[in-house]
Amino acid sequence: MSNIPYKTYLEESEMPKQWYNVRADMKNKPAPLLNPGTHKPMTAEELSVVFCDELVQQELNDTDAYIDIPEEIREFYKMYRPSPLVRAYCLEKALGTPAKIYYKFEGNNTSGSHKLNSAIAQAYYAKKQGLKGVTTETGAGQWGTALSMACAYFGLDCKVFMVKVSYEQKPFRREVMRTYGASVTPSPSETTNVGRKILAEHPGTTGSLGCAISEAVEVAVGSEGYRYVLGSVLNQVLLHQSVIGLECKAAFEKIGVKPDMIIGCAGGGSNLGGLIAPFMGEKLRGEADYRIIAVEPASCPSLTRGKYAYDFCDTGMVCPLAKMYTLGSGFIPSPNHAGGLRYHGMSSTLSQLYDDGLMEARSVEQTSVFEAAQFFARTEGILPAPESSHAIRAAMDEAIKCKETGEEKTILFGLTGTGYFDMVAYQKYNDGEMTDYIPTDEDLAKGFAGLPEI
Amino acid sequence: MSNIPYKTYLEESEMPKQWYNVRADMKNKPAPLLNPGTHKPMTAEELSVVFCDELVQQELNDTDAYIDIPEEIREFYKMYRPSPLVRAYCLEKALGTPAKIYYKFEGNNTSGSHKLNSAIAQAYYAKKQGLKGVTTETGAGQWGTALSMACAYFGLDCKVFMVKVSYEQKPFRREVMRTYGASVTPSPSETTNVGRKILAEHPGTTGSLGCAISEAVEVAVGSEGYRYVLGSVLNQVLLHQSVIGLECKAAFEKIGVKPDMIIGCAGGGSNLGGLIAPFMGEKLRGEADYRIIAVEPASCPSLTRGKYAYDFCDTGMVCPLAKMYTLGSGFIPSPNHAGGLRYHGMSSTLSQLYDDGLMEARSVEQTSVFEAAQFFARTEGILPAPESSHAIRAAMDEAIKCKETGEEKTILFGLTGTGYFDMVAYQKYNDGEMTDYIPTDEDLAKGFAGLPEI
Repeated sequence: MSNIPYKTYLEESEMPKQWYNVRADMKNKPAPLLNPGTHKPMTAEELSVVFCDELVQQELNDTDAYIDIPEEIREFYKMYRPSPLVRAYCLEKALGTPAKIYYKFEGNNTSGSHKLNSAIAQAYYAKKQGLKGVTTETGAGQWGTALSMACAYFGLDCKVFMVKVSYEQKPFRREVMRTYGASVTPSPSETTNVGRKILAEHPGTTGSLGCAISEAVEVAVGSEGYRYVLGSVLNQVLLHQSVIGLECKAAFEKIGVKPDMIIGCAGGGSNLGGLIAPFMGEKLRGEADYRIIAVEPASCPSLTRGKYAYDFCDTGMVCPLAKMYTLGSGFIPSPNHAGGLRYHGMSSTLSQLYDDGLMEARSVEQTSVFEAAQFFARTEGILPAPESSHAIRAAMDEAIKCKETGEEKTILFGLTGTGYFDMVAYQKYNDGEMTDYIPTDEDLAKGFAGLPEI
Repeated sequence: MSNIPYKTYLEESEMPKQWYNVRADMKNKPAPLLNPGTHKPMTAEELSVVFCDELVQQELNDTDAYIDIPEEIREFYKMYRPSPLVRAYCLEKALGTPAKIYYKFEGNNTSGSHKLNSAIAQAYYAKKQGLKGVTTETGAGQWGTALSMACAYFGLDCKVFMVKVSYEQKPFRREVMRTYGASVTPSPSETTNVGRKILAEHPGTTGSLGCAISEAVEVAVGSEGYRYVLGSVLNQVLLHQSVIGLECKAAFEKIGVKPDMIIGCAGGGSNLGGLIAPFMGEKLRGEADYRIIAVEPASCPSLTRGKYAYDFCDTGMVCPLAKMYTLGSGFIPSPNHAGGLRYHGMSSTLSQLYDDGLMEARSVEQTSVFEAAQFFARTEGILPAPESSHAIRAAMDEAIKCKETGEEKTILFGLTGTGYFDMVAYQKYNDGEMTDYIPTDEDLAKGFAGLPEI
C-alpha cells in the first residue's frame, strides 16, 4: 500500500477563497442566452426580473477568471466542506487493476449531493439583495433539499414546486424540505395560472420538470421580493460548483498526484462543470492535458446523440433560449432512475467545450450502472446515488481496461452524492426488475422537430 | 470567531491502534453474565456456542486496559473514519450562548451511525475463525445495515431477522441491507421453531426485538459455521465503540481543549459507552473530572426509573442473564420514534458506572427531542437521527443554562447518526401529530414483576 491516505482533506485555511470561472479562459465563449421573443441576447435588466442581481452579473461574466467567494458563504462551506478526495484502494483491489482510482465525494451533507455548493451561494445573494424568498422546482429532490437548507440558514422563505409524481413517490425527500421550513407544492398545482391551465388540459397529469419550472418562474416574477433560482445548467451554477474542482486540485497537489483522466456524470452539467473547471483551465491555457469524460444515461443522451442548437430550457417555453447540446425541450426521457440526469439539454459552457473537442462523452445503460453501484457499495462502503453511479461505471470500465493493458493510469471521478433516497430504484435492481431503454432515431427526431428556428 | 476549526480530523496516522477497555480501570467490575438455567457465571465455553471465540475473550476480559485493533479492521476504519469532531459555531450563535459546543459526528457512513465500528470488528473475528456467516436481529435497521456492510466487505453470509413492523414500514432500510447482499427475514417467521411457535400463539403479530433475537440465536446455534452477533449492550461492543472516544480525546488534545461535560443518548449503551470510555478512564484513575450525562427517552427510562437487577436480555429468555438497570424484559415501550433507544435494559458496564455515581442520567420527551432536532438541522445543516437528538436536546438545555448563568462551559455530545431513514417520524412532527408518552408507575410495575429472582 502506498503512502497516500485513504482520504485527503484540505485544512480549512487551504479551502478556496475564489471560484474559478472557466469561461474566462475559453477562446470560444459559450453562446449567450437569447430572449425567447426577440431572439436577441438577454440583457442584465431582462434577466434581473427573474434572477438576483449579483447572480445575473455572474451569469454574464465571461472575462474574470476568479470571483471572490463571500466570507458568509465560506463560513457555511466550512460546515460540510472540504469534502474528501478519496483513494479507492478497496475498489482497485477488488478489480485487480493497476490503475489508481480517486474520487471526490460530495455526498457528506444532508442534501446528499454537491447541489448545496450553489444553493448556499444563490441564497446568500438573495438575502444580500434584501429579498424575502426564492422559488424553484425540483424533480428527484436533491436540489430542493439543498435550497431548503440554504434558505433555513439565511432565514429566507423557500417555495419549492416538486414534480407531482416525485412528490407522491418520494414523500421522504418532501419531509426533509419541510423540516428545513420550505413549502413544497406538487406541480402542476392550482396555485399558478400555468398550473391551472395544464391541469385543465391534462387532468390527472403527474407533472414534469418543465411545468414545475414554469410555475416557479411565474410565482417569482409575480411576488414582491422573490426571485427564481435554478440548480444546474446555468453558468453561475458551474461557477459555484468550481469549488469541487479547486479543492480537488489542491488536494492532489498536497499528495503529489496528477490525474490522467477525469470522469463525471452529466445531466445539466453542474457537477461535471465544477469538477473539471480548474483542470480544464490548465488545458485551455496549454499548461497540462487531461482526458475528460462526460457520462450520460443512454436513455437521455444529449451530448452523444443530441444536436448543438438554440433551444428552450423549459417545456413551458417561458425561459430564455440557450445554445446547447439538446434532445429538444419536448423530448420525454424514459423513467430512468437517475432523475438528476433526465434533462433534455446540457450546460452551454460544457456544450461549447465538447463541441471544441476538449472533452469526450459516452452513454451507459442503467442496469450496468446499478451493477457498478452495487459493486462500489460493497467494496468502498458508500451507497452511491444513481446519477453518480454513471461516473462509477465509466471509471470501473477504464480501470478494467488498465488491467488488460497493464497501464497504471490515475483516474479521478466525481462521486456527487448518496443514494439513500433512491432505494426504490435499488429495490428494482435487487429484484431483477430493472430494464434498459434506448430511444430510437425516430424518438429523437420527434424531439428535434420542436427545436426553434434561429 | 476563535482559531478552532469547524471540523477537526485526525490524520490517518493518528487514528487509534488499540481499543480502550474501561472495565480494566473500574474498581467495581460489571457483574458477570449468568447462565439462565444454573444462575452461574457463563463460561467461555458456554458463550462460544453463540459468539465467536475472540469476541468471547473480549466479553470476559475486564483486566486488559488496551486491546490491539487488528490491522484489517484499522484499514476498514480508514474508509469512513476518522470521524470529525465538530465545533457547533452556528448552533452556539443561534442559541446566543457563551457555552462552547462540540459534537463527535458518527453519521458519515452508509450505515448512518456508529454501529459500523463494532459490526466490522465482529465480522472480522467471524471471518478469522473461518465461519460461513453470522445472524442477527435488527429493529430500526441501523445495526442490520452496518452488519450487512461489514459482511459484504469480508465475504461473509449475513442473515438478518428484522422486526416485522419495521420490515414493512421501513422497506428502504431493508433494501440497503439487500444491496449489501444480506438476507432479510421479517420476524416472527416460519423459518424457526420459536418463530412458528410465536406465530401460532399470536397470529398477526408484528413482532418484537426480543422475538427477533430468539430467532437469530436459534439459527446461529443450529447452523454449521454460524454465530450470533449483537450491536449493543455487550462489553465487547462497548470496547469496539471506544474508538469514538479515543479519536475524540485525541482531537481535543490537538486543539488544546478539554470538555467540561459529555452527553450521549443511551439505549443499550454502545454509543455512550464508546464516547465516554477514555474520559471515564481518566475519571476512574483520578486524573481528570468530567460531568457525564446519559439521555434516554421518557417512554423507556431504564436508568432513571429502572431497577438495578439481573434480567433477561431478550423476551424469549434464551440469552444469558445480565445485571443491569432494567425495566424488565416484559416491558413494552410505547411506539417512540427513536427505535434505537427502545430497549428495556442498559449495558452492564454503564449500569455499574451509573450505580457508582460516576455518571448522571436524565430522560426527555420526544416532542421536545424533535424540536431540538429541527433546530439543529436548520442551524448546523445535519438532519440528525431521532436517537442522537436526545443528546442534542440535553446539550441545548445545558447551553441555555450557560446563557442564563454566563458560564462558558465546554459541552461535548455524541451525534451518533443521521435521520435519513426516519422521515416518517419527522413527518409526524412536521404535521403536529407527534405525542409524548410517559409510562405510569403501574406500567413499570408490570415490567418489574417479570424480573427473575436471583
